[in-house]
Order: sequence, then C-alpha cells, then structure tokens
Amino acid sequence: MTTVEPPHEPRRRGFRTGRLEAFSDGVFAIAITLLVLDIGVSGGAGRHLLRSIVDLWPSYLAYLVSFATIGAAWLGHNAITEYLDRADAAFVRLNLLLLLVVSFLPFPTRLFADYIGEDSAERVAVTFYGISLLLASTLLLVLWRYAVWAHLVRPDAADEEIQLLTQRLSPGLAGYLVLIVAGLFLPIIAVIGYLAIALYYIIPFRNLHAGFLPSRRRSPQPRG
Amino acid sequence: MTTVEPPHEPRRRGFRTGRLEAFSDGVFAIAITLLVLDIGVSGGAGRHLLRSIVDLWPSYLAYLVSFATIGAAWLGHNAITEYLDRADAAFVRLNLLLLLVVSFLPFPTRLFADYIGEDSAERVAVTFYGISLLLASTLLLVLWRYAVWAHLVRPDAADEEIQLLTQRLSPGLAGYLVLIVAGLFLPIIAVIGYLAIALYYIIPFRNLHAGFLPSRRRSPQPRG
Amino acid sequence: MTTVEPPHEPRRRGFRTGRLEAFSDGVFAIAITLLVLDIGVSGGAGRHLLRSIVDLWPSYLAYLVSFATIGAAWLGHNAITEYLDRADAAFVRLNLLLLLVVSFLPFPTRLFADYIGEDSAERVAVTFYGISLLLASTLLLVLWRYAVWAHLVRPDAADEEIQLLTQRLSPGLAGYLVLIVAGLFLPIIAVIGYLAIALYYIIPFRNLHAGFLPSRRRSPQPRG
Amino acid sequence: MTTVEPPHEPRRRGFRTGRLEAFSDGVFAIAITLLVLDIGVSGGAGRHLLRSIVDLWPSYLAYLVSFATIGAAWLGHNAITEYLDRADAAFVRLNLLLLLVVSFLPFPTRLFADYIGEDSAERVAVTFYGISLLLASTLLLVLWRYAVWAHLVRPDAADEEIQLLTQRLSPGLAGYLVLIVAGLFLPIIAVIGYLAIALYYIIPFRNLHAGFLPSRRRSPQPRG
Repeated sequence: MTTVEPPHEPRRRGFRTGRLEAFSDGVFAIAITLLVLDIGVSGGAGRHLLRSIVDLWPSYLAYLVSFATIGAAWLGHNAITEYLDRADAAFVRLNLLLLLVVSFLPFPTRLFADYIGEDSAERVAVTFYGISLLLASTLLLVLWRYAVWAHLVRPDAADEEIQLLTQRLSPGLAGYLVLIVAGLFLPIIAVIGYLAIALYYIIPFRNLHAGFLPSRRRSPQPRG
Repeated sequence: MTTVEPPHEPRRRGFRTGRLEAFSDGVFAIAITLLVLDIGVSGGAGRHLLRSIVDLWPSYLAYLVSFATIGAAWLGHNAITEYLDRADAAFVRLNLLLLLVVSFLPFPTRLFADYIGEDSAERVAVTFYGISLLLASTLLLVLWRYAVWAHLVRPDAADEEIQLLTQRLSPGLAGYLVLIVAGLFLPIIAVIGYLAIALYYIIPFRNLHAGFLPSRRRSPQPRG
Repeated sequence: MTTVEPPHEPRRRGFRTGRLEAFSDGVFAIAITLLVLDIGVSGGAGRHLLRSIVDLWPSYLAYLVSFATIGAAWLGHNAITEYLDRADAAFVRLNLLLLLVVSFLPFPTRLFADYIGEDSAERVAVTFYGISLLLASTLLLVLWRYAVWAHLVRPDAADEEIQLLTQRLSPGLAGYLVLIVAGLFLPIIAVIGYLAIALYYIIPFRNLHAGFLPSRRRSPQPRG
Repeated sequence: MTTVEPPHEPRRRGFRTGRLEAFSDGVFAIAITLLVLDIGVSGGAGRHLLRSIVDLWPSYLAYLVSFATIGAAWLGHNAITEYLDRADAAFVRLNLLLLLVVSFLPFPTRLFADYIGEDSAERVAVTFYGISLLLASTLLLVLWRYAVWAHLVRPDAADEEIQLLTQRLSPGLAGYLVLIVAGLFLPIIAVIGYLAIALYYIIPFRNLHAGFLPSRRRSPQPRG
C-alpha cells in the first residue's frame, strides 16, 4: 500500500517546479500583454483616424513579432519544464536570467515600432531588437542544456526526445546572428526574419507532436 | 492496485492543459485589468472635476463593453477547456492566436473611448473596435470547433452538450457582422449591440446550467 | 476500493472553482500592483527632489488606502471561496461584476491622489472614491449572501461560521455610507475612515482565527 | 485504507497556502515586469538613437538592481512557503504588508533611474531607494521569523535548515543599513552594494542546495 503516492509529489523534489512555472507564466503573460500599451495614435488624429490607424503598421508589426517571439519562448519554456523531473538552485537562477530578458523585450519592441522607417535610427533599433531576441533565445537553450547536463530531466524521457528538443531550440541562434548582420544593411529583411524564426518555433510543421510537444503519458489509460 | 491513478494525470496527455490555462488566465486577467489605465481626466480638471468625471462616459462605456467582452471570452475559454481531455500542438497555437487578439483589445477600446462623439472618426473607431471583437469571437469558435474535430474533447461529454456549446458560441459572429455594417451609419447602435452580445454570452438566460457551464461530475458523490 | 477519489474532484462539480480563483487572483494582483504606476514626481523636480517626494503624500495615502482595500477584498474573496463547495453560473457572473469594480479602483484612486487638497475638487474626488469602495464592498457581500442562499457552501461548514463571515462582511457597508456623507463636509475624515474600514477587514483584532479565516480541517491529521 | 489522504490537504489546514502563493506570485511577477515600463528614450531621439540607447544606462542599472532584488525576494518568499506547514491570520497579513512594499518598488526604481548623475537629487533618490529595499528585506525576515515563532513551519523541517534560512535572510539588513549611510556620500557605491546584496541572495555560492533551497523530499522514491 505504500506505493499510493501523493500525485503532486514526484515533481516536488529539489525545488517545487509548480511555483517556478506559475511565476514564469506570470512574467511571460504580463510581458506579452504589456506590448499593447505601446500602440497608440497621437492626440489630434481625429480627422484622419483611418489613416492614422493604417499608418501604425510598424506598431502592429512590432506587436506581432514580439508576441510571436514571447509566445514561442513560452512554448519552449513549457516544453523544457514538461521534461523536468525537478529543478535545482542553478536552474532557478538561470530561469530568472531568462525572465530578466523576456520582461525587457517590451522596450526594444517600442524602439523598433517608433523608429522603423527613420533611416539610420531604424538600423540601430532593429539591431538592438535583434540582439535582445538573440539573448532570450540563447538563454532558453542554455536553460535546457543545463537541465540535461545536471540530470534534471525525467529519467523516463527518451534520448531522442531530448535531442529533438535541443535541435528545435538551436537553429534560431544562428538565424538571429545572420539576421542581425543582415539588418545592418536591410533592416526590413531582419524583421521578416525575426518573425519567421518565431513562427518556426511556434508552428510545428514537420510533425504536430514532435518538437515542442512531448507526447508523454500517451499510453492508453482506462477511464471510467 | 494499479487502478489508483494520479488524479491530475488524466488531463496531462498530449499537453498539460494546466499550464495552458494558467497562461491564458494570466493574459485574460491582465488584458481586462489594463483597460482601466486608459480612463483618465485631463490635467487641469480641478475646478470642474464633477463635470469632467461625468464627461468621461465614453470611457466608462468602452471599459464596460470591453470588460464584458473579455469576461465573456474568458467564460467561453473556460467552457472549452472544461470539456477538454487534452490539448494538441495545433490547439496550443490556435490558443496563442486567440490570446494575440484578446491582448490587443485594449488598443481599439482606447480609440473607441477617445473618438466617440467625433463625427467621422467615431465611425472609424467603432468599426475598428467591432472588427477586433468579431476576430476574438471567431477565434474562440474556431478553437472549440478544432477541439471537437481533433477529438480533444473528453469522451464522456454528451453530444448534446457539445452541440449546445457550439450553438452558444456561434450567433455572436453573425451579430458582430450585422453590427459592424450598422455601425457605419449609426455607431451608437453598434456599441449597444456589442454590449448586448457580450451580455448574451455572460448571462445564461434560458437555463442557468446550460450553455457555458458544463454540469459535469454532477453525479452525487459520497463525502466524509 | 471505489472510495479512493481523485482529491481535486470534490471542488469540481458545477464549475471548477480553481480557475475562477486563478482568474480572480490575477485580477486582484494586477489591480493592486497597477496602483504604483500613478505615483510619480513631475519632470523638473531635480533640485528639490526630497521635497517633491515628501509632497507626494496624497499619492502614498491613496496607494495605502487602495492597497488595503483591495487586499481586504482579496481576503474576503478568499474566505468566501474557502467555504465554497462549488460555483454555479450566477456566482461566476456576480464574481465578474465584483472584478469589474475592483479593477476599476485604480481610476478613482488616481483622482483622489491628484485632487486632494484642491478645495471643491477634493470633495468630488473623495466622494467618487468612497462610492467605488462601497460598490466593491457591497458586491463582496452580495457574492457571499448569494453563495449561502444558493446552497453553494460546503455542507460541513458550521452555521456559526457562515453567520460570522456575514457579520464580518456587513458593517463596512454602513461605514462607507456614513463616511461618504461625512466626506462631503470633511473629506479628510472620510479618507481616514476608508483606511480604518480596510484595516478592520484586514486585521482580525478579536480573534486571530475568527472572521475571514475559516479554520476548517483543523482536526488533527496523522502525518507520515 | 483511511491513510489514503487527499494529497493537497496537508497544506490546507488553517489557511490554504496555495492561494496565498498564487496571489503573491502574481504580485511579484507583475511588479518585476512593470519595471520595463519606465525605460524609454525621449521623443526626438531619432538622429542619435544609438547614443540615446547608451545614455539610458542608469535605467538599465535600475532595472537590473530592482529585478535582482524582487527576484531575490521571490526566491526568499518561495523558501519560506516551502517550509510552511500552514498559514495563520497574522502570517497572511504580514505577507500583504510585504507585498505592499514589493509592489511599491517600481516607484523608487524610477526615481533612481531618473536622477542618478544629478548631484544632490541623486543622493536623495539613492537613499529613498535603499530605504525601500531595506524595508522589503526586513519584512521578508519578519515573515520568516514569525512563521518560526508561531510554529507554522513543517514539523519535519530540521532545526539546522530553519537556522540556515534565518542566517541567509539576516545579513542583507545590516548591509542595506551600511549602504544607505554610505550612499549619502558616495551614491554609486550604494547602488553597487544593493546589486551585490541581491546577487548574494540569488547566487547560492557556498552550497547549491543550501540556503534558499530546502532539499526536502529528497529521499529516493520508487517511480514506475
């Protein structure tokens, strides 16, 4: 009878990942929702409101790219904690570092929305934006690689699944590096590229259940 | 003894809906609470503050309509996940798309509050607002229809219940379409209509337990 | 063996109170944290910053009163859901109405901070503020009374406990009414009174475990 | 068979710490994410955007110090509730007081970012900032000491662990006091010191599993 274990407990050794997830979810959700605060038409737009709304396309684009990127980071974070057996002290600190960058993203997003189309400033804003995205994406990979290295991953996770997640999280980094350089010459290309990377993370085109979505506990269960 | 299953696990196959719900709840809660930031009297209102407060009625109306709409969307989202057995990759992505629109709503709400009463701008603002509401409401229905189509719904959910939820989520779309067109001529009618649709979703007038509120697990349970 | 019930399920009949609580917690937490955004010194305060900081006392007072009030409302909400066996459709809607008022509170708080000390405007701001607090407090009591009336309360809750919570939630209403009238003549008295009511709810002076804190499941439990 | 207890219940006596944690997590997460709203370049920065971005270093520094401090407070709060068997009425109130200070932090952070480098104002801003940090840190220690004093700590927690956490939470107070005084003469030293204290709390340099991270339930558990 001693095998009847409290169901929540298996995840509680070392550090309760529940509260780590709750706090992280909170930061991701707030950062993604604060993005809208930076969209706004200027005061006296009354007469030509339709035009003002249309002219805000850089803000919509910035909103879209940042929403997709934070959404992708949340999905990645989700996949990582899904495989997690427990967290240790260093993992919790690395996670804080990731959240530091994620909750910083609204600032470069705002710069990017404000200065796109403005010649030299555009170049600076897009590069600054790209570096921030690269940082977030790097920290996500570091978090995952650390979890694997420190044996925090559930023992029943298949090696292929672990490698698959590593493969999914890696190419974005090279992509961001290339795009940051490209953005120095053609900022708009970089922006489209940033969106493409976020969508690459979000849309699982090869196999719906591969990549970010660990298909654990898929074994048939009897239900009443 | 192997039938003693961890109680949380039935919902965990495919994708943990728990964290999906937590993140969605966060975005809904933040979007609904940010609405108040756009209500404000202008600087020098000191002498006639009472009047300034009364003159803000468009802001209160916008706050009310958007609060009711996001609240209704949250209730609908709740009903959908309540019927969910598990989530798959596409569901999670569709959900992100819904959240993209929901967290965008404070912007059209602000426009609507700022430009109501301003002739031609009013028409633009109300139409833009209506399209945003239509989009949110469409994505909610798409999310639900996808869940049914992809067999993500709990097998023990009765077919009538599933159809009832589909029926509850559908009429709003036609309503929004009609109101968006009507709003081009009579913006105020559209606004009242938007509020009515939100209240239609929120207030379950026919049967308190029908509609958004699945009455599952109502079977009598012995308690200690 | 059929008595081994999933532990979370007892609270899940009718409507999952878990997600209702999560969403409500989110709105309470965001509303309470947004209050700080309205505290700020004006641009050119450099030379006399210390004085500017001191001169902001109305903002601190407003922050304190609203924080205490929202905190008290959260405690009250907590006590109510603590006694809840399940939620029904009307309860969820009444809860939304309460959240509508709670997330509105940052606006009257800002007015109050901006116009205190400004003669006639002060009177308007304090009265508007008081009416908002009264509304929040009334809805909290309505929510609780509805829960009792609709038999949503856990059957094992003692009648005295239910009456005690009703008694704790009621006097604030009369208090607010008196203070709103008093505030028309002496605004500062009203403000001190609002703070006193919030502290009355927060500080359980008679008996630490009475009032908002149902001492359920206090019976000794064997632990391993 | 009566030993099969609902797994969540052991934490539910007195007061459900689950909702206390959820609300606290929400406030911590929002306060930490709101910090970014105060970073911004002024309107006409177009021509010299790169320089404007670089010139914002006080904002980044303030963001970093406050993020680290709130992050450290969250870790400390986590460690405290991790050891908690239950909460009582006074604990919940003390916790509200801590949240009052934590959600106030974005204001001194903003002042600090705005006035650093501005001679006498700098001194005021840094001192005000330091006092706020001291207050937050004191309340965290008070919360923990109260929990120990009121026997809210889990009975199976080892005495050394309890003392270790007390030791971890204490030195920051003396540090803040010294730095506040030092900051009257050399503000920049104080700022570096504030960051150092936050990192001291965050980085567990002696022993990864000591300090903030209770290693409870580390006993080997059989898994299927």
